[in-house]
Amino acid sequence: MVKFKSEKLDHEKVIRDPVHNYIHIKDKVIYDVIKAKEFQRLRRIKQLGPASYVFPGATHTRFEHNLGVYELTRRICNIFNDRYRSQNPKDGLWNADETLLAECAALLHDIGHGPYSHTFEHLFGTNHEKMGQEIITDKNTEVNQALRQVSPDFPNLVAKVIAKTYANPQVVKLISSQADADRMDYLLRDAYFTGVTYGAFDLTRVLEVIRPYKDGIAFTDKGIHAIEDYIISRYQMYQQVYFHRINRSMEVILHHLLQRAQTLYKEDKRQLPVTPQLETFLANTWTLDNYLSLDDGVMETNFSMWRNSSDQILADLAASYLDRHPLESVKINESTKNLIPKLKDLIKEAGFNPQYYTATNSAFDEPYDAYKPSGKNAHSPIEIMQEDGSLIELSEVSPLVKSLNGTLQGDERFFFPKTMIEKTAEPQIFDPIYQEFQRYIKNNELYNPAK
Amino acid sequence: MVKFKSEKLDHEKVIRDPVHNYIHIKDKVIYDVIKAKEFQRLRRIKQLGPASYVFPGATHTRFEHNLGVYELTRRICNIFNDRYRSQNPKDGLWNADETLLAECAALLHDIGHGPYSHTFEHLFGTNHEKMGQEIITDKNTEVNQALRQVSPDFPNLVAKVIAKTYANPQVVKLISSQADADRMDYLLRDAYFTGVTYGAFDLTRVLEVIRPYKDGIAFTDKGIHAIEDYIISRYQMYQQVYFHRINRSMEVILHHLLQRAQTLYKEDKRQLPVTPQLETFLANTWTLDNYLSLDDGVMETNFSMWRNSSDQILADLAASYLDRHPLESVKINESTKNLIPKLKDLIKEAGFNPQYYTATNSAFDEPYDAYKPSGKNAHSPIEIMQEDGSLIELSEVSPLVKSLNGTLQGDERFFFPKTMIEKTAEPQIFDPIYQEFQRYIKNNELYNPAK
Amino acid sequence: MVKFKSEKLDHEKVIRDPVHNYIHIKDKVIYDVIKAKEFQRLRRIKQLGPASYVFPGATHTRFEHNLGVYELTRRICNIFNDRYRSQNPKDGLWNADETLLAECAALLHDIGHGPYSHTFEHLFGTNHEKMGQEIITDKNTEVNQALRQVSPDFPNLVAKVIAKTYANPQVVKLISSQADADRMDYLLRDAYFTGVTYGAFDLTRVLEVIRPYKDGIAFTDKGIHAIEDYIISRYQMYQQVYFHRINRSMEVILHHLLQRAQTLYKEDKRQLPVTPQLETFLANTWTLDNYLSLDDGVMETNFSMWRNSSDQILADLAASYLDRHPLESVKINESTKNLIPKLKDLIKEAGFNPQYYTATNSAFDEPYDAYKPSGKNAHSPIEIMQEDGSLIELSEVSPLVKSLNGTLQGDERFFFPKTMIEKTAEPQIFDPIYQEFQRYIKNNELYNPAK
Amino acid sequence: MVKFKSEKLDHEKVIRDPVHNYIHIKDKVIYDVIKAKEFQRLRRIKQLGPASYVFPGATHTRFEHNLGVYELTRRICNIFNDRYRSQNPKDGLWNADETLLAECAALLHDIGHGPYSHTFEHLFGTNHEKMGQEIITDKNTEVNQALRQVSPDFPNLVAKVIAKTYANPQVVKLISSQADADRMDYLLRDAYFTGVTYGAFDLTRVLEVIRPYKDGIAFTDKGIHAIEDYIISRYQMYQQVYFHRINRSMEVILHHLLQRAQTLYKEDKRQLPVTPQLETFLANTWTLDNYLSLDDGVMETNFSMWRNSSDQILADLAASYLDRHPLESVKINESTKNLIPKLKDLIKEAGFNPQYYTATNSAFDEPYDAYKPSGKNAHSPIEIMQEDGSLIELSEVSPLVKSLNGTLQGDERFFFPKTMIEKTAEPQIFDPIYQEFQRYIKNNELYNPAK
Repeated sequence: MVKFKSEKLDHEKVIRDPVHNYIHIKDKVIYDVIKAKEFQRLRRIKQLGPASYVFPGATHTRFEHNLGVYELTRRICNIFNDRYRSQNPKDGLWNADETLLAECAALLHDIGHGPYSHTFEHLFGTNHEKMGQEIITDKNTEVNQALRQVSPDFPNLVAKVIAKTYANPQVVKLISSQADADRMDYLLRDAYFTGVTYGAFDLTRVLEVIRPYKDGIAFTDKGIHAIEDYIISRYQMYQQVYFHRINRSMEVILHHLLQRAQTLYKEDKRQLPVTPQLETFLANTWTLDNYLSLDDGVMETNFSMWRNSSDQILADLAASYLDRHPLESVKINESTKNLIPKLKDLIKEAGFNPQYYTATNSAFDEPYDAYKPSGKNAHSPIEIMQEDGSLIELSEVSPLVKSLNGTLQGDERFFFPKTMIEKTAEPQIFDPIYQEFQRYIKNNELYNPAK
Repeated sequence: MVKFKSEKLDHEKVIRDPVHNYIHIKDKVIYDVIKAKEFQRLRRIKQLGPASYVFPGATHTRFEHNLGVYELTRRICNIFNDRYRSQNPKDGLWNADETLLAECAALLHDIGHGPYSHTFEHLFGTNHEKMGQEIITDKNTEVNQALRQVSPDFPNLVAKVIAKTYANPQVVKLISSQADADRMDYLLRDAYFTGVTYGAFDLTRVLEVIRPYKDGIAFTDKGIHAIEDYIISRYQMYQQVYFHRINRSMEVILHHLLQRAQTLYKEDKRQLPVTPQLETFLANTWTLDNYLSLDDGVMETNFSMWRNSSDQILADLAASYLDRHPLESVKINESTKNLIPKLKDLIKEAGFNPQYYTATNSAFDEPYDAYKPSGKNAHSPIEIMQEDGSLIELSEVSPLVKSLNGTLQGDERFFFPKTMIEKTAEPQIFDPIYQEFQRYIKNNELYNPAK
Repeated sequence: MVKFKSEKLDHEKVIRDPVHNYIHIKDKVIYDVIKAKEFQRLRRIKQLGPASYVFPGATHTRFEHNLGVYELTRRICNIFNDRYRSQNPKDGLWNADETLLAECAALLHDIGHGPYSHTFEHLFGTNHEKMGQEIITDKNTEVNQALRQVSPDFPNLVAKVIAKTYANPQVVKLISSQADADRMDYLLRDAYFTGVTYGAFDLTRVLEVIRPYKDGIAFTDKGIHAIEDYIISRYQMYQQVYFHRINRSMEVILHHLLQRAQTLYKEDKRQLPVTPQLETFLANTWTLDNYLSLDDGVMETNFSMWRNSSDQILADLAASYLDRHPLESVKINESTKNLIPKLKDLIKEAGFNPQYYTATNSAFDEPYDAYKPSGKNAHSPIEIMQEDGSLIELSEVSPLVKSLNGTLQGDERFFFPKTMIEKTAEPQIFDPIYQEFQRYIKNNELYNPAK
Repeated sequence: MVKFKSEKLDHEKVIRDPVHNYIHIKDKVIYDVIKAKEFQRLRRIKQLGPASYVFPGATHTRFEHNLGVYELTRRICNIFNDRYRSQNPKDGLWNADETLLAECAALLHDIGHGPYSHTFEHLFGTNHEKMGQEIITDKNTEVNQALRQVSPDFPNLVAKVIAKTYANPQVVKLISSQADADRMDYLLRDAYFTGVTYGAFDLTRVLEVIRPYKDGIAFTDKGIHAIEDYIISRYQMYQQVYFHRINRSMEVILHHLLQRAQTLYKEDKRQLPVTPQLETFLANTWTLDNYLSLDDGVMETNFSMWRNSSDQILADLAASYLDRHPLESVKINESTKNLIPKLKDLIKEAGFNPQYYTATNSAFDEPYDAYKPSGKNAHSPIEIMQEDGSLIELSEVSPLVKSLNGTLQGDERFFFPKTMIEKTAEPQIFDPIYQEFQRYIKNNELYNPAK
């Protein structure tokens, strides 16, 4: 086993962080990665994209989150090195020599993200995981140069940990599992900045009971209630914040706006003012450097130019995004979906292009990570270590977690222009179109008036 | 006295806020002002400018702050209406009919701010107070249209309160005085987002003891310690956050960067790529609409283009700002200032243009509002109301406040390139220039080695 | 409908409370009830009895809790009076005239408690509910005298609200239901003082969504997640704090200690030193005055005398309680209960009287109030009010609550002397008795080694 | 240098603490000291005596405080061992072998306290420092037996550290100095339980900057603001909590009550019912065992018996204490003190014995520890370590601390029966005695009407 070491800093550096109080930096490689321009760029990309339109405090960025995941990983490794340090390769304990690797992977686990990743990737064919691997392994990046201090192969190993192809599952699962440093940080951080106190869980207790075992990370049985608390926090944050209907509505608008821009550019690029940072993506000629020049401000600067466009749809969608004019929405289900075409007709009749002014969006399609022992996360159930060292899967000992286990939480919604149901006393509200439309809405759900 | 009234909303709206828990909106005019595009734009302007380079959590914007000042004002007016409602014009109590006016003024007190106001105004001749007045009174803005619901003259009255020319000092001082809703909100908010707990004070207690009197706002004598606590919080936030040397260094870089851009544009505008939002300011042809299209993202999008400029200074300063490469600094004082020319010579010799790579910056020049019974804030000492109704100025009853009273806190610094004293083992460090330079620095202060 | 009014205080009084920040007192009757000696006596009775042996911070008393329930009720009534004030008797809204009655009932809902109520009542035949009624209605108490200021019948009405026989279910359910001011206060308070953060829920949000309806108290559908959060808090506090095995063990010791004292006193009262406050209970001649002279300190003062008793069992149990020597315990279930007689034989063989040194204790027997639509709490499900005003029971809309609904949480335990399994290297551990005993224990559960 | 070592526990034990989250126990000696009956007894002695009469949450005990001081010391020693571990005897750094000694001294620094120490000692000639030394060094105590595990001399060394006679000033000053673990814990703890948020300071930051030096404990210059914050917290807690006029009034009543009991007992012991725990103190025949049997509950149990005494003064004072009837008070100063005899005459005329119903009390006489470079604390100024390793005394670098330096904060008060100024509409208020009395009171101060 290689031993990963870096020069230590003369003096430990600390960064103030309202969630973890201080981020502690002792290794030069950590310090240099943070200083790298690819990492500093994360300061300009919001962690929760348009969620600040609903929770104004949620302006925090991927920069802080990455620091936070690093800090949590550092603390966990400290505990592992103190209490569970491996003495021989077969004892299933923590290999102290992999601490720096885990810390670097934690710090860089989201380095590939760009602005509004989800929406952007869908339209422009980028992929934040692939970009992350490239940023880490491309010899021209400052991140790569910082990592190579440790050893020429170190960037590749960091990339492997993030890609989950690294051999030691303990290192991998510290960063990516049902209860990893990544999720712990984002739940606490998103709760802090949104002000949604539900998302806070007892981190101190979780850190008391976390421990390594042969195949990954487990929690001692004294900590069942702390882990339950963490699972409930996740449930609450998904329901309250990540799946908020207005958050999703703003994402719908963003998607339609970029789609419209793409269409216009393809038709005739002269009709679309665009800054150089974004243009290569519309032209599909982008490089890593172009990718690294994108951030939230660049996107919004383009939107700000587009709001003056002669294309009505582009201008309106750009203004809707910047000035926060969300679409309205109602819940739909299998039995009411068939009504949507009728509604789209009415919306069209009212003067809106349904392609750009309606959408169905299912929150179940979102990367929802509620605890599942089968499916996508099958490989990483949360394990509880009993007194005799045997493991037991969490939902077997927690009735609370059992109740969430395997369920799908969330909803599916149909989005449409707010004016279709606006309760203002405008004359148009009496128009037959609007009256007809509103027959299909009841108690915030789509409804079949024919029944 | 006119009675200001607006339509009430059907249902009270609430906005989650991590500092005040919820912002409560009951009046349609408040709701409509918040929805106005000029107000929504504040979402894209950070409250503390480059301070997030030092305190990464400090990404909060002027949008939340304005909501917070509104909410505090609303709560204070509630208390006044409940406990201190005027029964006759001479009783010196609160006129309930001015509540809505106070709330609107609170909500809009910072509406004129643009990105990096201080630096920007200095270079481009804008003025956020004047712009604020214009946004409120120009009939084409959505803010103005929202306000006119109340009465045709209402925008002017709101503007007057903010300009401190409104007749009733109670309304004015609620928004602008030594202990106003504005400062209360920003101290708490900046403390929350930076994570600097020193800035938190006991708001609940302050709201228990605040009360109107004939000439303004006072605090009952049971609250002396709460007000002391508030004053200490201000002291601590200024020393710890607002005057932080790296915060100031990033402002220096910003200033030099914009200055360089201005110079290049004047020489030959073709050599400076610039987005339309910013160009009118370089050309000095800007309008209110142009002003409203500026935000942090627009500025940084331009910097991002400039980092690829063929002008070395522009490119380097742009990268320094975006990638966070602060200048180094040392304290200076009257007896060491005379050494600066010598240092500038050395810096020039080392290859840096002193105009763009050095600066002296005095934190005393900053809008520092520590309690002063004379000078700029002479008109608004904090008044304590004694049991018999007489007023006494705070520093007379608080030895703590007395000690801060009339003192100037802060420091003056000389900024220069970090490489002049970098402790890295680069060969150049042995060069005579560097050795000479370092003779002038001791214990983070400028120092005369000749003595 | 009678209108309950009391003289107002000249100046509002406030009491600092770490949970609710301030308790606000505006009515003279509230102030006078708090000053009454029967109320002041609650300062000397811990809210959680022996729980401070497990959570040292939990020294808070019934005094603070009663103030807290009053304060929450006051805040809720404020909201009701502001938003849901009844205009006619049939509108199902809040009758403002009953505010003072609700507040007094809240303040006095636990006035009948004595030290270690549960254990004490079981042995001495007292009943805190009956005593509470007496304290309120007996004309000689200061509480009664304070209440009579309002009207001669007011004490009876307060007593009726507490006894749930008062006509208006809104007033009754504010104090006693599945989500009442009592539980809201104790969850928050017990969480604060124990330091168990799981118990904290979002009170601000709950107060945003609480509202009256014809038959009681409901919550609007915007608050489902806040109520879920509250239910989970309850679950966590029961599992973590109230049912903690050592908490229950100390209660077992207390029970056995008082039982032993009772037995000795009956045999020959001269052999039991006892202070006058307690003696009347042993002699079964007690009066209300005697009851009011009891408190935690009196009980412990007696224990402190008993630890010097010549009766070995009394002395040992008294010392065990005062010096915190809990019994050990293991989980039992239906299939292992039959092993207990065998264990008791071994314990007896080891020299302990099983009557005083063993116990089985089922946490399900505790007054556990997890949500149940049938059974004891059948009358008070938590109701959610939908947009159209119709009610829906909470578990129908919350998968989380549904999962807890109707389940019994907790465990049953067998308690025995710690020395039976002490892992110290004392020679006795090799004795056959101990070896035999330990065959029956596995993974903290009772276990049948014969299988 | 001897190396102090104790057996480690198999598993680390943790105790929940709302202030420090968890108390961590790894050494068997620490665990055994906590289990000792002399230590468990601290659970029954409130940290702030009668302060819970003013701040109802302040029911916390010396038990938690001692655990807290231990935990802080443990954390500080951890930091010292990690960053500042001595490599040779002359380097002025921390000797890791003294860690256990420091921790034990921290845990036991207040072990000698009894109920209401200050008042009790004054009247009964006990001394908590001497009692503490005895509890630690007397071979019959469980504390002593626990400590002797480490070495036969260990109890003496622990006693020496507490008595400040131990050779190494670092160990001594960790426990007793202007900024020691004792004060840090009690400020945070008293703030938490009283709910007075002013008392909270940034412990995390203080622990970042604390460090040993040759002659004691210093703080690095990056921490000046954190130390300022701590000093301000102390100031605020003294002014707001410890010197609160009602707190002092209750102490006056307590003093008079015990004095009256003493007098009656001396006259004829049969006229005073008293429990055995207290009697030996009245008879002045007490032993260490008697001292250890005292606690708050024992005292209050006696008061509860005394309230039925035929001696009117004893009965009334006992009831005043238990039922919280504080004396009223006014500020006095050198120029108004001469009026007190006149007031006492009036009080006597009104039927109150001035010996038991009046008092003058100076808060300056209290053990106030505001920063003083001369006088009692001359030996322990707070030292700031500059970058070059030199020390500078705190007030030289902090204008805030300078302002408090050498000042006496607090006041002197004259206490008297509340009925002398009661504003109730009782007929007696018109009596000449009362009218005369009230001429001497103005704005809560004693006042000379003749002037």
